[in-house]
Order: sequence, then structure tokens, then C-alpha cells
Amino acid sequence: MSNSIGNLFKLTTFGESHGIAIGGIIDGCPAGLKLDFDAIQFELNRRKPGQSKITTQRKEPDQVEFLSGIFEGKTTGTSIGFQIKNTNQKSKDYSHNTGVYRPSHADYTYDQKYGIRDHRGGGRSSARETANWIVAGAIAKQFLDKVKINAFTSSVGSIELNKSYQDLDFSKIESNIVRCPDIVIAEKMINKIDAIRKEGDTIGGTVTCVIQNVPIGLGEPVFDKLHAAIGSAMLSINAVKGFEFGSGFAGTQMKGSEHNDLFNNDGSTKTNLSGGIQGGISNGMDIYFKIAFKPVATTMQKQETINAKGELVIMQGKGRHDPCVVPRAVPIVEALSAMILADFFLINKARK
Amino acid sequence: MSNSIGNLFKLTTFGESHGIAIGGIIDGCPAGLKLDFDAIQFELNRRKPGQSKITTQRKEPDQVEFLSGIFEGKTTGTSIGFQIKNTNQKSKDYSHNTGVYRPSHADYTYDQKYGIRDHRGGGRSSARETANWIVAGAIAKQFLDKVKINAFTSSVGSIELNKSYQDLDFSKIESNIVRCPDIVIAEKMINKIDAIRKEGDTIGGTVTCVIQNVPIGLGEPVFDKLHAAIGSAMLSINAVKGFEFGSGFAGTQMKGSEHNDLFNNDGSTKTNLSGGIQGGISNGMDIYFKIAFKPVATTMQKQETINAKGELVIMQGKGRHDPCVVPRAVPIVEALSAMILADFFLINKARK
Amino acid sequence: MSNSIGNLFKLTTFGESHGIAIGGIIDGCPAGLKLDFDAIQFELNRRKPGQSKITTQRKEPDQVEFLSGIFEGKTTGTSIGFQIKNTNQKSKDYSHNTGVYRPSHADYTYDQKYGIRDHRGGGRSSARETANWIVAGAIAKQFLDKVKINAFTSSVGSIELNKSYQDLDFSKIESNIVRCPDIVIAEKMINKIDAIRKEGDTIGGTVTCVIQNVPIGLGEPVFDKLHAAIGSAMLSINAVKGFEFGSGFAGTQMKGSEHNDLFNNDGSTKTNLSGGIQGGISNGMDIYFKIAFKPVATTMQKQETINAKGELVIMQGKGRHDPCVVPRAVPIVEALSAMILADFFLINKARK
Amino acid sequence: MSNSIGNLFKLTTFGESHGIAIGGIIDGCPAGLKLDFDAIQFELNRRKPGQSKITTQRKEPDQVEFLSGIFEGKTTGTSIGFQIKNTNQKSKDYSHNTGVYRPSHADYTYDQKYGIRDHRGGGRSSARETANWIVAGAIAKQFLDKVKINAFTSSVGSIELNKSYQDLDFSKIESNIVRCPDIVIAEKMINKIDAIRKEGDTIGGTVTCVIQNVPIGLGEPVFDKLHAAIGSAMLSINAVKGFEFGSGFAGTQMKGSEHNDLFNNDGSTKTNLSGGIQGGISNGMDIYFKIAFKPVATTMQKQETINAKGELVIMQGKGRHDPCVVPRAVPIVEALSAMILADFFLINKARK
Repeated sequence: MSNSIGNLFKLTTFGESHGIAIGGIIDGCPAGLKLDFDAIQFELNRRKPGQSKITTQRKEPDQVEFLSGIFEGKTTGTSIGFQIKNTNQKSKDYSHNTGVYRPSHADYTYDQKYGIRDHRGGGRSSARETANWIVAGAIAKQFLDKVKINAFTSSVGSIELNKSYQDLDFSKIESNIVRCPDIVIAEKMINKIDAIRKEGDTIGGTVTCVIQNVPIGLGEPVFDKLHAAIGSAMLSINAVKGFEFGSGFAGTQMKGSEHNDLFNNDGSTKTNLSGGIQGGISNGMDIYFKIAFKPVATTMQKQETINAKGELVIMQGKGRHDPCVVPRAVPIVEALSAMILADFFLINKARK
Repeated sequence: MSNSIGNLFKLTTFGESHGIAIGGIIDGCPAGLKLDFDAIQFELNRRKPGQSKITTQRKEPDQVEFLSGIFEGKTTGTSIGFQIKNTNQKSKDYSHNTGVYRPSHADYTYDQKYGIRDHRGGGRSSARETANWIVAGAIAKQFLDKVKINAFTSSVGSIELNKSYQDLDFSKIESNIVRCPDIVIAEKMINKIDAIRKEGDTIGGTVTCVIQNVPIGLGEPVFDKLHAAIGSAMLSINAVKGFEFGSGFAGTQMKGSEHNDLFNNDGSTKTNLSGGIQGGISNGMDIYFKIAFKPVATTMQKQETINAKGELVIMQGKGRHDPCVVPRAVPIVEALSAMILADFFLINKARK
Repeated sequence: MSNSIGNLFKLTTFGESHGIAIGGIIDGCPAGLKLDFDAIQFELNRRKPGQSKITTQRKEPDQVEFLSGIFEGKTTGTSIGFQIKNTNQKSKDYSHNTGVYRPSHADYTYDQKYGIRDHRGGGRSSARETANWIVAGAIAKQFLDKVKINAFTSSVGSIELNKSYQDLDFSKIESNIVRCPDIVIAEKMINKIDAIRKEGDTIGGTVTCVIQNVPIGLGEPVFDKLHAAIGSAMLSINAVKGFEFGSGFAGTQMKGSEHNDLFNNDGSTKTNLSGGIQGGISNGMDIYFKIAFKPVATTMQKQETINAKGELVIMQGKGRHDPCVVPRAVPIVEALSAMILADFFLINKARK
Repeated sequence: MSNSIGNLFKLTTFGESHGIAIGGIIDGCPAGLKLDFDAIQFELNRRKPGQSKITTQRKEPDQVEFLSGIFEGKTTGTSIGFQIKNTNQKSKDYSHNTGVYRPSHADYTYDQKYGIRDHRGGGRSSARETANWIVAGAIAKQFLDKVKINAFTSSVGSIELNKSYQDLDFSKIESNIVRCPDIVIAEKMINKIDAIRKEGDTIGGTVTCVIQNVPIGLGEPVFDKLHAAIGSAMLSINAVKGFEFGSGFAGTQMKGSEHNDLFNNDGSTKTNLSGGIQGGISNGMDIYFKIAFKPVATTMQKQETINAKGELVIMQGKGRHDPCVVPRAVPIVEALSAMILADFFLINKARK
């Protein structure tokens, strides 16, 4: 509960942005998996701050250090402890926040819930936590080596990638800094974020994720439906306000006769409005879903807010924040997807 | 896992549509709660089939029988067992389904996952399961007697209720069979469903839910964010394809300077695009969210499909199904909301 | 938590001795298991009251009714709901207990914990609950059809069966009403219990359990050691005060050079003081353990006690209770053992 | 599961004796607890190797480093990450173990379960893990500041402390290196262990623990009985073979009329054979229990054993091991007791 995700493939995490380190424990990764450590670090680099002009300029090497559970490069089946040191804890950047409740941040709710708060940064609400998820997700990806998981930026503000995912070339995702597989749209998105950044403002967007080669049978019938677990994971990412899979919200306007996915003889379906999941269980078709990210709350513009005494104060963001979280969220979405699938893959071994 | 929801206020369920009974066990309901049994049955009646011309004409009394955990009308703190008998098991209605995989149902995935399937009906994938949720949710509502939970139909196909929830009169929700608080829109929705029903087709829609008077501090910071738990619960309802809260998908097009909810001196906020939750924790403002329901897969029209041997067969729905699930989903959404809040309310007692 | 046991093979229960029914939900029993219902009822009959002169004379048929999760005699992989009706609820037998705290019962602690108590009987503290365990355990036994689980009465008061289990003929266990495989000792035990019963008193004893043909590798290295899970289950049985496995308490007086189990070439061991478990994980040798049961608290003799107001009152048991729980505990010990092993068998599938 | 203990106060751990570090995450420690870091280190020092002539001479500073969840000396309610570096990883001491299965160790079962094993030491089966438990237990002790937990050595081999705990002076426990509150018996125990050490052999023993000032109402009625949770925790300690509480195994020879604890007017009891727990729930009387530890498997004597190929080999312990684990187990027993009580204390807040 609270700081753990998963059942048989389980990640438990700790760490605040301004502490000594963040880290986690992966419990239940099967034994005998040969790890590619470069691939893990590659995923961390995709998420890390300071990677391009449209992300925060804060620099963190985000180097993961494994402490246990691995012997001669292979998992031993025991718990994998790891940490990522916080090398760039510019606490002074945040000193102006002492006692001030930033609008649309968790400062107020943390103070109300716990009666105490680490005011040097966002504490556990910092997106720095997601680096831990990348580590566990990168290992889950290696465990599920036949499954292909591709997330990408599908909109920035009102600039949308209006193409079916089948028409996209996923190999282009990493070719640009906004992580949109359509180069023309990517350019527009980058310009948009850059313009917003110059205004000292922020902008929202969406990430779409496509999972291919999923084994049939993953997911549970009632309360651990595969899409409910994926949805819950995605809603755990900072700034997420919505999740839809398959036909999603657009499907609400369709008729059953239009929406049903008719079968081919081999059990595959002619269409895939279901999004690869029937009754909570994967059917072998592509799983795809979209996630809504609100604009980052920290802007460089002046805002009125209150402090812990309820007094009105004027604040202005001084830290180094992302004008749009979406490009850096792409690897996070993939990491969580991999973890959920690995967990359900293991659970499914016990079902017949 | 699988057939349970919740941590400290926990429901575990069983039952198929064509078995002897469905039922469940509520574990962790605090002791000493005086139960209003009529209120529980009232909620079951809101969900039960056959209640109006726009729902399935199948009749089930859906009478709950409590078997334990209650003494002299009060909860004792021990597990509450209950069952709802299946009085109307017209198995023959479904005999034509033996070995046939209905399009966009879970028949195929269940067979693949388990190697066996109760082909008399949908098995655990039947929405009959949701009657169990209503029972637990009705008790959770009584436990949270100060919290107000109102769900309503906010769209049927393309007919949308385009009003802010603040402009609606929730007391009108039960005044019409589609459960829309705007009488004019309700009439249109009813006519739409009725027309669809006559076509032998089905239609999707959305339910919006508003939760008021929520205590501050419910929800956990990382993996049990309040909205993630609510989202996961909603995605467990049959036919749900999407979930958004607060500004949702529309919020992705906004700037941070527009989206931030500025504080009043008392910690409340001037706007509420956050949807009552900051950093996964309730902030005391109204929680609101919207859920997308696809059109029901069972239509009365002929469809091509396959059987377990992979042979093409023609099938036509003969059962008594809903042309639109949304009106009957309204109490289900409320029930799950109540359960999640009750669970987090209890968890929060341990946090400081 | 609280009313559930197990992880992947999980039982959740409800029910008080004086309610309508007791029952449970088995979640996670693998699909496709053909059930032998007579074998399940046979186990219930071994536990049921009124089976011999040395058990309570209360009569309950203890007939289990399955409500879901089974189709054409086989498990479907979905949750198995079941109930056992309470046909013999002689509440009046207990009416003298209203407000009286019976010594060494849970009346006082329940009242303190919950502020309310079903004073018609022991509520959830009644050993009637164990009938639910028998049902789940009987199914687990069938799932683990190659594993042999034999429990037996190894002492009644000071009458002990001082033989190595290897020298016993387990086929004799059911040949006598005290369930001791040595006929001579069994006779002494029966006479002892009968004498105690005539005094209106009760007596303690021990049960030993031997599990053979256990797959190697069951159990987890740190907090779900196989013996810790078995011990926890056994300590959940009413009246249990102790648990030891392998060399147990006697082993504390040995030297390492005497206690170590040396290996044969095939990985089996020459001795088995370890009790079939090394580092929390089964090693393929026989698992054996012993459980201590205190004397039943309800005697037919007069006792001084207090009521809820703290007033001294004289009470005398009038119900129909067991003079010694041990004979009826034998099938309960086996049932819990089977459940734990089934759970760890499923978990182990995910470990490499 | 596996590497976690507790529900609301939960510890998850990682680490092998020969890795970089061991450590853990404490999830659910309530916010606002002012920590006494010296008291935590004091407990670690009680457990650490090399502290006296009757423990292993291996030296490890066992300095805990906290990484998160604490701000200005107080817990923030978020997860507390910590690590203890392994400064003394003399891997060469163990190089002779490669591929050799030490008798009565977990080498064989780990290899069978996982197909891979960190042969530099015991991996997760090393008692080094218990240092993690000390950290979490020391924090739990501070949270439960009114509860008094005292464990002590109650036997070494056949040298037993045959006194009622009421006749002991707990302040003497730390006055001698074997941690027995009776100085005369302590001296005998120390001499015994010293003699055994000189033989290159090892010896078993027991630890008794007494918990006083326990709040009434802790523990759950069916599957999380307080004594079952304590028993499960104790059975998780390396080398433990048995657990009994209250009258324990001796109670099996008593009659109900002798064993019942009669009430005083205030709800306390005249005797306490129940060991402070009725029906799984604390009744406010002292909780006491005894734990059996087998002799350590690693002796300095020559033993025949096998290697992974099934070949017979002669081995002789060369590491620096304890001749008797009991003195160092004392703080471990206290730590686990504190964690279990803290967890149930928090759970109990939700029960009425």
C-alpha cells in the first residue's frame, strides 16, 4: 500500500527530490534474468532532466546503483535494492517556498494530511520519484523481451497527432526531442513548447502508448482487470488527469453494431476498438491507450497564493521546471506499462 | 487480488449470472454502525434490471440477504457475509451460445485464460456482479454519512449535458429513468435510447460523479493516489473505456497560468480544475470525474462470429439486454466511490 | 487482512455460530480442477460436532453448498463462493451469557475492541469458523493430489504418543475416535477424555502433522518462510498456544555437530532434524510439526467471573462443548496445511 | 509478499551479506514522530557481530544511514529509506563454498528454487538481514513509547532460567554478554557457550520476551490474531524452530478448570496463562512468549557434504560464526515484536 506497486512483480520506493538519494526495492523479479545495464541507464537518460531545450535545465546524472539481488549479471530471485543519488540538491532554489502553499501543488494537502512537510521541494510529490519507476520498468521490459512497448507524445496543447498509430513509424520516436513519431508535427510541438517556455508558462498534452505482442490471458476478471491496473498506474504519474483505452471517450458516441470487433477465424479481430482487452483480459491484439497531462503548475509568472498562516503572498517560480512534462513522461509511461504486464504475466502462471 | 477491492474497507465477491447466487464478504466495516436496510435495498433497486422501458426487461428482485457481521441492526466489526439469489436463471436463453464467442465479449479471453468457461452466461464478466458492489457501497455511504455522492448520466451517444455541475439540481436525478438532472436533456436521452432499442442496437454514454464534503487528507502520495484508486474502481465497471477527473482531457490544452487553482485564505480554492485532489490527496474541494461507457456488445442484430473451433457462425442476441448501460451504471459509480472513500478514510486514521 | 488467508490461493470467510450461515470465498483456485465433492464432505464430517462420545454432543449436519466458480464439476478459475447453514442455532443455550465475560474466552476483548458483541455465542471466535477452512483445505488437497498430509493426535494431557512418526501406520488414524494411529495409546487417550468429560472439565493436548511428497522449492526466503506461514496458520486455530517444527524446542539442547542433516548424493538428507525446510524453503524431505492446544475454556463447573459492569457473577457452562478439542482439530490442521502448500506452490511458479 | 512484513507499518528489505549494502523501506510510519537516532544505533550495536567473546569475531560497524522520510529529525509520513553498508565483505572467506552445499544451510534449497545462487555467502538467508529489522523495530519502539518490550536469553543448551518472569529484574539483561537477567545463570550460560566455541561446535537455546503496557484490543479475530502475527514474525528469524506463548506446550497438560484466567473487577485477570491475548486480541495483561533456536549449522569441525554435482566433499567452516545465536537474537526478537505491535496499533484505529 502507498509506496508499492504490483503483486508478484512489485516495486516499493522511497525518496524526496532534496534528500540524499531516491531508490527502491524490486521484489519478485524472477531468477536467472541476464540484465543489460546499459539498457537500464538508457531509459533513465530518456527521463532525466536537462536533456534538451524543451525540458527543465536542471542537471542530474541519474545514475542507478544496484545494491543486491544480482549476481554475476543475473537476477537471483531475491529482492533487488537500488538507489539514485541526488547530486543536484539546490535547496536554496526552494527556500522561498517555506510555508508557502504553491497553487495546484501538493503543499497544502501534505501539510493537512501529515501535519509536517519537507518544504525544500515537493517531497514525495516530486516527479523525481519517477526515476525509480524507470529502473523497475527497464528490468520488466527485459523480462518481457518479446513484448514491444512504444509510447509517444500525441498532443501538446491543441497540436494533435491525428493519425492512427498503425500509420506511424515508432522508430522515429527518439529522433526528436518531443518524442513524436511524426516529424512534421514534432516540429510544431517543439516550437509550441519553446514559445510557452519563453512566456514563463507551461502547457499540457497527451501521451499515447501501444503495446504489441502481448500474450493472451493477462488480466483478472473482476477487480484486477488489465486496463484497470494500467489505468491506475498511469493515474499515479504526476499531472495526469485522464486515461482512456481502445475507443475511449469517442466510443461513447458509437452504436454496438459499429463498435463490436468481429473475429477472424484465428481468434484475432478485424477491428480493435476494444484496445486489446476483453473482460479485463488481454486478447492478443494491440493494447493502446492515451493519457492526459495537465500543464505543470510551476510557472515563472507571478501568482497570488497563501502561506501556512492563511496570509496572501505573491510568489514567482524560480526553480528550473519543465514547460511541458509530456516528452519526459514518454519513458515513464512505458516503464509502468512494462511493470504491470510483468506482474500480470507472473500472476497468470497460477491460473490454470 | 482479483476478486477483492479495498484495503481496510474491503469487498470480496463471488457469483455468476447463472449460478445459485452471487454475494460477497465485506471485511473491515467499522463496528457500531447502525444500518438502514431499506436504504441498501433502495440502491439495489436503482441498479436492478427491468426498472424501466430503457433498461433490459429481465426481472430480478435482487433482494440482499445478510448472513453475518450484524447484530441487532448494527455492524459488529466482523466480516459481513451477504448473498443475492439468482431467481431468474433462464439458462436456455443462452444455450445458443455454447461454444460461440460473442464479439466484444469476454468469451474468447476466458476460454484462452482458463481453458474452461461457464457458457450459460458471461460468468464473472456478467454485470450482475455489480449488484454485490451496490451492497458494499450502500454500507460505505452510511458510514460516510456526511459525504454527498451524486452520479448522473452526462451523455448518451452524442446527446450531452453541457452544463457545469454547479448549475444542476441533483435532486432531479431520480426524477427520470435515464438519471439526468436536466429534464429537457433527459427527455432527449430517453428518446435516443428508445430509438436505439427499437433498432435492436445499443449506444454508449458517460456518467459524471460529484463528491462533496470530502474530508481533507484522503489518498496516499505515490501509488494509492485518491484519483488512481477511484479511476481503477471505475475502470472495473463493465464497458468502461475511459476516466477523467477535474479538467481531464480538456485540461491538456490549457496553460499553467490558466489551470492553476488559486487559494482563498481558508485553504479552499477559487477555481477547482484540480477536481478536489492535489498530489493524490483530497483538498476538501468537490471531487468530480467522468466515465466513458462503450455501447453494450450484445445487440439484437445478426453478426458473424466464430466458435471455439474457429468456424464462422452467424449469431443474433436473444437475451434481454440493456440498449444503454448508463442509467443503471449511475448507482454503481456511486457505490464504488463510497467504497474507495471509506477505505481511504480508514487508512488516513493511521497517518499521523 | 483479518478474515483472509493466503495470497494466490486465498480464502476469505464470514460467519458466526449463531447466524444464518457461515461461509467463504476461495479466490485463486486454478481452473480445470475436477472436484470430488464426497471427499470435501468427508473432511467436513471429520470435523463436525456430535461425531463421537468424546466430542460435543451438539449436532450440525455441516453440509456445504457451493454457489459459484464450478461448472460441470470443474473449477472455472473464478472465485468459489460457498456456505454452510447453521441449522442448530440454540441461542437460548447462551442467553445466560448476555453481558457476562466468560473466563479465557474472547468476550471481554471483543467488547473492548469493537464496543459491541454478538453475545449469543462466541461470534467470530467460535470454532465453527473452522468448518470454512475445511472446505477450502479439502479443495487444496485435491489440487495437491500427490502430496500426502497426515495429522494425528500425539498427546492428550500427559498421555503422549512417544514414537517417531516413521514408526506409525497413518492408515490407523481414522480407526479410532481420538485419531491417534497407535491403538493402545488411543484407547488411553479416549478413556482420559471420557473421564475428564464426566468431571465437567476439559483437557489439552497436541496434534502432530506430517507432510510427504512435498515439491522442492516452496517457501520464500525472508518473510514468507514456509514454516512461518504454516506456523501462523496453526496459531490461528482456536486454543493453540504453541508450534514447533523439525527438532523444535528439543533441538535447542543439541549441538550443531549433532543437529546438522548431512546430505546423500541425491540432495536428500540422512537425518531430518530440519523438518523438511531449509532457509524457509522446502527441501523435499518430510515436513513435520507439532501444535499445542490448551484445554477448552468452557467447563461445566461453576466459575466466578464478571459482567460488562465489572460485577462479580457465578457462571456455569450449559452449552454442549468439547472436553478436548484435539480429535476434531486433526482435520483442521490438515486443511490449513493444504491451503498453505497450495498457495506456495502457485507462488513458486513465478520465481524463475 | 516475500520481502515485506506488516500491513500499515510495513518494512520491505533487500541485501545480501556480501553485497554493497543491505537496507530497507519503512512504509507507513506515522508522521510527526521525533526520532532518537542514538537509540536506533544502540539497538544495532546490541545485534552487531564482534561485540563479545561469545559472538562471532567478525567486525561490522552496522551504521545505519537514513535516505528519506525524515525532515528536521521528525518522520514526515512518507516512506523511510535506509541502508547499512557492508564494510567487511571478506568474500574470500567463503570462496571454498562455491558449489558446495553446506549441511542444514539454505544453499541446496536456493539452488533448487532459483536455479542460481550468490555463493559468496548465505545470500538472503544470511542473518545479516536482521540488522534491517533492528532499524525498523527501533523506530516502532519509539512510536510505541509507553509499551515496554524486554527479551532475554532463557536457556542455552540445557542451562535454563527456571524462574517466572515476574521474579526477574529486566534492568540486568544488558549487564552481561549473554543477556540473561539472572547473573548466576548468565555466568553458566557464558561458560557453556565459551566451551562449545572452543570445541568448534555450536549450541541452541531459547529467548523469552515479555511485553508490558500493551493497549487492549490489538489483534484481529480470525487470521491476523495477534499471537499468530507475532509467531510468524519470530519464525522468520534464522534458526528458529518453535514458538509458544502463555502456557504454551506445558498448558496442553492442564485442565480447563486450572487453566482459565479468572477476572478481577476491572477486567484484568488473576492469573495470565493466556499470555495477554484472548481470541487473538490483546487483553491488557502482559504478553509473553518463548522462541526455540536450533544450534547454528556452521561449525568449525569437518563435515561430509555434497556439491552441486552430487559429489561427496569434505568441508570445514572457516568463517567467523556465532557459537550460539541466542544473545544476539535478543534485540531481534524485541524489534520484530515492536513492529508487529505498531502495525496492529495502527490497524486497530480503523476498527470502530
